[in-house]
Amino acid sequence: MLNIGLLGCGRIGQVHARSIGQIEGARVAAVADAFEASAKALAEKTGAAVMAVDDLIASADVDAVVIGTPTDTHYDLIHAAAAEGNAIFCEKPVDMSADRIRDCVKAVEAAGVPFMTAFNRRFDPNFANVQSRITAGEIGEVEIVTIQSRDPSPPPISYIKSSGGLFRDMMIHDLDMARFLLGEEPVTVYAVGASLVDPEIGRAGDVDTAAVTLTTKTGRICQITNSRRATYGYDQRIEVHGAKGMLRAENMLENTVEIATSTGFSKAPAQHFFLERYEAAYRAEMAHFVDGVVNQKRISPGITDGLRAQVLADAATQSYKERTPISVA
Amino acid sequence: MLNIGLLGCGRIGQVHARSIGQIEGARVAAVADAFEASAKALAEKTGAAVMAVDDLIASADVDAVVIGTPTDTHYDLIHAAAAEGNAIFCEKPVDMSADRIRDCVKAVEAAGVPFMTAFNRRFDPNFANVQSRITAGEIGEVEIVTIQSRDPSPPPISYIKSSGGLFRDMMIHDLDMARFLLGEEPVTVYAVGASLVDPEIGRAGDVDTAAVTLTTKTGRICQITNSRRATYGYDQRIEVHGAKGMLRAENMLENTVEIATSTGFSKAPAQHFFLERYEAAYRAEMAHFVDGVVNQKRISPGITDGLRAQVLADAATQSYKERTPISVA
Amino acid sequence: MLNIGLLGCGRIGQVHARSIGQIEGARVAAVADAFEASAKALAEKTGAAVMAVDDLIASADVDAVVIGTPTDTHYDLIHAAAAEGNAIFCEKPVDMSADRIRDCVKAVEAAGVPFMTAFNRRFDPNFANVQSRITAGEIGEVEIVTIQSRDPSPPPISYIKSSGGLFRDMMIHDLDMARFLLGEEPVTVYAVGASLVDPEIGRAGDVDTAAVTLTTKTGRICQITNSRRATYGYDQRIEVHGAKGMLRAENMLENTVEIATSTGFSKAPAQHFFLERYEAAYRAEMAHFVDGVVNQKRISPGITDGLRAQVLADAATQSYKERTPISVA
Amino acid sequence: MLNIGLLGCGRIGQVHARSIGQIEGARVAAVADAFEASAKALAEKTGAAVMAVDDLIASADVDAVVIGTPTDTHYDLIHAAAAEGNAIFCEKPVDMSADRIRDCVKAVEAAGVPFMTAFNRRFDPNFANVQSRITAGEIGEVEIVTIQSRDPSPPPISYIKSSGGLFRDMMIHDLDMARFLLGEEPVTVYAVGASLVDPEIGRAGDVDTAAVTLTTKTGRICQITNSRRATYGYDQRIEVHGAKGMLRAENMLENTVEIATSTGFSKAPAQHFFLERYEAAYRAEMAHFVDGVVNQKRISPGITDGLRAQVLADAATQSYKERTPISVA
Repeated sequence: MLNIGLLGCGRIGQVHARSIGQIEGARVAAVADAFEASAKALAEKTGAAVMAVDDLIASADVDAVVIGTPTDTHYDLIHAAAAEGNAIFCEKPVDMSADRIRDCVKAVEAAGVPFMTAFNRRFDPNFANVQSRITAGEIGEVEIVTIQSRDPSPPPISYIKSSGGLFRDMMIHDLDMARFLLGEEPVTVYAVGASLVDPEIGRAGDVDTAAVTLTTKTGRICQITNSRRATYGYDQRIEVHGAKGMLRAENMLENTVEIATSTGFSKAPAQHFFLERYEAAYRAEMAHFVDGVVNQKRISPGITDGLRAQVLADAATQSYKERTPISVA
Repeated sequence: MLNIGLLGCGRIGQVHARSIGQIEGARVAAVADAFEASAKALAEKTGAAVMAVDDLIASADVDAVVIGTPTDTHYDLIHAAAAEGNAIFCEKPVDMSADRIRDCVKAVEAAGVPFMTAFNRRFDPNFANVQSRITAGEIGEVEIVTIQSRDPSPPPISYIKSSGGLFRDMMIHDLDMARFLLGEEPVTVYAVGASLVDPEIGRAGDVDTAAVTLTTKTGRICQITNSRRATYGYDQRIEVHGAKGMLRAENMLENTVEIATSTGFSKAPAQHFFLERYEAAYRAEMAHFVDGVVNQKRISPGITDGLRAQVLADAATQSYKERTPISVA
Repeated sequence: MLNIGLLGCGRIGQVHARSIGQIEGARVAAVADAFEASAKALAEKTGAAVMAVDDLIASADVDAVVIGTPTDTHYDLIHAAAAEGNAIFCEKPVDMSADRIRDCVKAVEAAGVPFMTAFNRRFDPNFANVQSRITAGEIGEVEIVTIQSRDPSPPPISYIKSSGGLFRDMMIHDLDMARFLLGEEPVTVYAVGASLVDPEIGRAGDVDTAAVTLTTKTGRICQITNSRRATYGYDQRIEVHGAKGMLRAENMLENTVEIATSTGFSKAPAQHFFLERYEAAYRAEMAHFVDGVVNQKRISPGITDGLRAQVLADAATQSYKERTPISVA
Repeated sequence: MLNIGLLGCGRIGQVHARSIGQIEGARVAAVADAFEASAKALAEKTGAAVMAVDDLIASADVDAVVIGTPTDTHYDLIHAAAAEGNAIFCEKPVDMSADRIRDCVKAVEAAGVPFMTAFNRRFDPNFANVQSRITAGEIGEVEIVTIQSRDPSPPPISYIKSSGGLFRDMMIHDLDMARFLLGEEPVTVYAVGASLVDPEIGRAGDVDTAAVTLTTKTGRICQITNSRRATYGYDQRIEVHGAKGMLRAENMLENTVEIATSTGFSKAPAQHFFLERYEAAYRAEMAHFVDGVVNQKRISPGITDGLRAQVLADAATQSYKERTPISVA
């Protein structure tokens, strides 16, 4: 039985608790949160002990920690947990600064603890299916990757102001997905963007509509578009064109019903809420982590994947500002 | 060059003239119509000669006739054309009476002339593709055939009164399609129906909504539904379930465009007009006829197919009236 | 908190236990099974008490029972639970004999206890969406219902021999769905069938391929086809044609991925396993039962729905054997 | 009756002749070609007179010319036809040099003759439907345009060597489509590319896989990808994301048939041949030209659209070579 300590009992912590509840061989052993009420509520549901953060990390009853606290706390928690020899599951981004992530890489590698960066989309059954079939050679060598990623509606302006910007907060998922699908590291990043959805976002110094082009050493190309608005649901599509064919994952709609009337044939919108859309992905990523720790298998994505995505997001931000492609070789 | 004489220059005659214009090795040599203006108009477009019906059939310049006149004239025209040794392409139904069609079969067989019954839907690229893949064994032995066939809107009541009823005028196409796809002759027919679209149709003694179940000797099943109304276009779908899989042909929409908004994902209605929906089928059936006559190949569907469909339509009508399955073995 | 006693801890009992675990305001309080090991295993997972059947029904700690035992035990359990004033959730079929179900109806009505017949498909999000939109008038008056229902593969012959036959064991779901969608009671039933999948099934006196036509008093039509085999997954589709349009629910595929190669565009098979396909339906039906009992709302489908479906299945069986339509008015 | 003179009787000239044959109020009056046999063959089919190029342009029997000759002859033919007052329909590209197109603009404007640049894709029923619905406001202000355009297989290397490169020969269609859909002029162009399909193409100095990002003054974004290879047919898709929703045009498949087997659900490949894929577009563009000339309506796309697309293709070529975005404001 893998005893997991949850650091952070907010929305994402609760998601992970629910996933752990469905996995054989793992349980939520302890929980900690700055708000004691949150910790207590989750403890009641799971039967876990409520602990202070330091105690949880140091507890002999905890084999692994799930870090679901605010981003600026990740750095210290990773260092502490690594020092205690805990396996670590950490929400993305690992940190807002690539240099600080590099420090974390050193700490984790020195401690030799398993580490997983929670890029949950890699575990979406649709996207995972695409990637495994690329690996199996079903479409030959990858040539062009296209990623469309659009949120149903923008986050509050307060969030925008502290998020590090669209490229770091939203597109980072797509930059990781690009790495996952391209099969090669991107070497150039070119970004454009504008504030077309909400002028407030522009005034806050950010964009809400953006596009990035990545190229790899052998010439593979990835195009990504992001928007903070999609009236038709949470728009999450990928398409990979290879030498022998194309693979694409379409949106998940609310149901399979189609109505036909004089105006034509209509289906439901795409699922709106990210927790619903990626429910299966959250479950699968936690199962992967537990399996990796318990059975000493390779865990992926690891901490260097978290670093590499941050480097790409930084480069996209710079490219957008300087209006020129940035080399990240 | 196959010289074709068109008997009937109305809507369907014009369709056939246009098809012939696109086929290498055939031309409209002569046209005839009760309304001279119709004949003249078509002659101008095609360069054909305007003739009286009898003269056209007897003309040495005519190798084959296309019969597109009212149904009650088919009997005499078939006999006359067969006597003159013309190849015959005849619109469906061959006649409203199965017994009179049997007379035509004798006349055609005695004369030894090529004969094609114009069940155009067999030549629709989608339906033809389904049938050829059944024959190629892609889904194994056929088990269940489902045919959905719905007109955009009912014909005038005057037409209803003289059409012989829905089973003979509309479902006859689907009964022929069932034979085309089942690979065995139906041996029982069970029909139900009602007037749900327009009470006038009910008062005229007909139904506007109907369903038929056919079974074959080895137990294969076909279900057909018909409606005189479909708000979303001309609804023409078939589905065949076999031992190894299923083949289905979906509707042809007006275009491939999809719009996504807060209400969901919407596509265009199905094509409404039968001449547009079956444009390719009309062209292909005429090409098949010309090829068969010119190259002395087997022509199908022939006159016995016209007879068999009429027998099934008669049985469906009887089944509906007597509320019991009818044997047609 | 609604305290639920589970009668039967086999596969379906475990499904219901999992559903209850996700519903606020309900818990598995007690479990009983002829195999004590099954009861103990489920008790461990849920924290429930293991009891003997009679004790469970009589227990003051149990407000409602979920009957998931073999069909031939339902009759006695329903009578016992009703006598004790328990709310009852009963797996389908209520009983193999319509007359014995009529006895149960009397017992339940005399006791005045809430009763739900577990026709789970009514709670499938796709089918429920179709039905609610019919009720909302989106396609006008219903005219034609088409139900395609095909299992991935046949059950063991031993099951076939004791199941009461395809119409009672498999099509009963579709007959209930027909009633759910037609909005009127069927008054005639016509059934055909054959053994095309496995001759062993024919030798056991049953069919594996079947079709039924239902009509209602006002002339609405329903066509159902069943097969014990579908190579492409669990084929579960409905389509409803009304005066103003059509609603249809398509299959649920394993994922949303499409591959395009020189042979065309391909998607995954339909989900194969009924517990996966109807996972959401199982959860929703139990939530409906709990909500109905706790908040004293109308529960549907009730015991008379269980009776009516059985009457239709009996009529279909008779129609198939006698080769004639059966009146069930 | 508009009398049209065809300059060039090759493949594209024959396409235009067939289109004209289906348009009321227009006819092919005269044809000219460097190969007299080609001219004669087309004259026989259409009833047109065979003429020398200069005579055709100067003929009083010719109201309008269709220029379907090699690109390097367009310049002189446009000047000659404009001088004679002929309406001009000219294949794309107008010329390989933007400066020489500017000369043509002057000549055409000085002569005041109607001029149409044959960007046929604007007249594809799917793409035209998307554009008209954007104009009608169905998706609000345009924000992101995505164009996927992939040929089934590369042209001969000999063609590659003289084509001006992928951006000028292939992507020019997509650059025009981008202008058609964006509703604003692009002001920056960024291009990447590689030779992934055939190393011979790389050795010939061209790319076979490419992507372009365009931005407009207000921040709208367009992403285009091109490949010289698509195993699944002629891949021609557009997608437009706006403030209120998304419009997309999918590929046109060979038929509507779907097969379901144990490997899943499969449809036919996309239509392969550009003349089949764009058959309706060729007919519609010619109808637009004839209608514009006969009824003195505005003709679009005009000669400046031809110029603007060439400027964008030149900029893309330069961007690819210099690895930096190019301003085309």
